[in-house]
Amino acid sequence: MKLLEERIQRDGIVKEGNVLKVDSFLNHQMDITLFNEMGKEFKRIFTDCTINKILTIEASGIGIAAVVAQYFNAPVVFAKKSQSINLDGSVYSTKIDSFTHKRTYDVIVSKKYLSANDHILVIDDFLANGCAVNGLVELIESSGATLEGVGIVIEKGFQDGGKSLRERGVRVESLAIVDGMDAATGQITFR
Amino acid sequence: MKLLEERIQRDGIVKEGNVLKVDSFLNHQMDITLFNEMGKEFKRIFTDCTINKILTIEASGIGIAAVVAQYFNAPVVFAKKSQSINLDGSVYSTKIDSFTHKRTYDVIVSKKYLSANDHILVIDDFLANGCAVNGLVELIESSGATLEGVGIVIEKGFQDGGKSLRERGVRVESLAIVDGMDAATGQITFR
Repeated sequence: MKLLEERIQRDGIVKEGNVLKVDSFLNHQMDITLFNEMGKEFKRIFTDCTINKILTIEASGIGIAAVVAQYFNAPVVFAKKSQSINLDGSVYSTKIDSFTHKRTYDVIVSKKYLSANDHILVIDDFLANGCAVNGLVELIESSGATLEGVGIVIEKGFQDGGKSLRERGVRVESLAIVDGMDAATGQITFR
Repeated sequence: MKLLEERIQRDGIVKEGNVLKVDSFLNHQMDITLFNEMGKEFKRIFTDCTINKILTIEASGIGIAAVVAQYFNAPVVFAKKSQSINLDGSVYSTKIDSFTHKRTYDVIVSKKYLSANDHILVIDDFLANGCAVNGLVELIESSGATLEGVGIVIEKGFQDGGKSLRERGVRVESLAIVDGMDAATGQITFR
């Protein structure tokens, strides 16, 4: 998606350790106009799929999923990190390692909001080693729902997450795939 | 907001300890069509205000804020719980007690995304004892930005948060104010 690549090129900041900071428009401050363009693009890409629910994970996937969902006329369910007293015990759960936070989270979705009748589009901001998306796929499999596809804003193409999901037959569509970053020059190479 | 009160009456579940579960449409599964109606209502209420930025807090405020922001043509900034390696050290921070999670969080906003030029509308799903909103107000005050108002989806009118904010001169507008709940009968009384 050209508009997104231009934005990453203009406002993204490359840091040591393969960190790409896009918090000025994606995952701290959120440019809702850009999110709407992303929603239109995901709808165009997945237009052949019957999707009745969007699944994402807190926190930075939620805003994107909420705006994207408008183009599918579907509700959003967000998987929660760690159990809250406001959730029943009746949940699907898995564990997800976070690259960003250097820890492991218990991630849950209430059984009420994922079922064998659901056709799910997973939406998330980043795909790198694939831990978060793999966890969401596992929750979907536990519920018997159908995974129609995975829509990612930025995929780090030099990490294994996207490759391994596609090899397992999961349809992964990323709006921008970064194949390389140089912290010294700030240069970002897209696929 | 009548549509919201009807939805709370129909799908909300009252539990012991003044817990109102609305996770089927508000804060686990999100009804984006309803969120759009809420966005129109907040725009109607705050139509006299000049608002250039929406501030909320992860996680359950994000989806609502993202959809509401479309009616203000404004970006959203969400305050983050606990420091991530992807954020610079240059942040406004405060501590917020969570009623739901029975713990205290460090909450931060990058100094890049709140400044003295900003006119802020705070959006959140719940207002009870006011800890989260008070924390966000403190972050806004630290930045020198102008707080135009606070838009809440569900206020628990029998707890002190709304009253104490209004007494301090903060404009708080809640789409539904619950004055009482009975876990035995499931009855919910609105103001």
